[in-house]
Amino acid sequence: MNKHVFGNFDHIPEKEIAPGFLSKLIHTNSNTINFITVKAGSSIPLHRHMHEQYSFVLEGAFEMTIEGDTQVLTPGWYCLIPGHAEHGGSALTDCRLVDVFNPVREDYK
Amino acid sequence: MNKHVFGNFDHIPEKEIAPGFLSKLIHTNSNTINFITVKAGSSIPLHRHMHEQYSFVLEGAFEMTIEGDTQVLTPGWYCLIPGHAEHGGSALTDCRLVDVFNPVREDYK
Repeated sequence: MNKHVFGNFDHIPEKEIAPGFLSKLIHTNSNTINFITVKAGSSIPLHRHMHEQYSFVLEGAFEMTIEGDTQVLTPGWYCLIPGHAEHGGSALTDCRLVDVFNPVREDYK
Repeated sequence: MNKHVFGNFDHIPEKEIAPGFLSKLIHTNSNTINFITVKAGSSIPLHRHMHEQYSFVLEGAFEMTIEGDTQVLTPGWYCLIPGHAEHGGSALTDCRLVDVFNPVREDYK
């Protein structure tokens, strides 16, 4: 990313990163930004990755567990997940979430 | 950030980073995430910083100029601003924006 970009999500293809998790992904030099639509009842099992993760909810309710602590995230809530921390969660309703990962998720490219 | 965090924006004090730009700031190990409410008509002059910046609009219309190119950002639009690129903009309506900076904005702490 040496040149600036103006873009619209309409032009980003949707990718199903886990069953029921539909992502639009943007990779900068340093981060991956993940705009996710999740169907109610979809869940992602506990997992770990080396990337630091910051997540927040735009719409709906998502139950997140990090290292054994659980919180229902609704608009206004956010969470910070250090690299290698165990986490996972379930959509209690249809949701829209944003994740920011650092460094870039090469596995999502 | 060695431990995970669940937090709510209600508990983050608002900071006026420029006239009419009210921010709620979160610093991770690698990034600063900036949730901004901007009053219609407020503008931020052209400026540069070493931080890479990713911005998108949650509500409203924000006219952004980067290196001489101008685009009105509405929900669905985003922009990527490389480090040291000249940029600035104006709120055409009341807006809610999100900026992600890498590395951390030490000047915003």
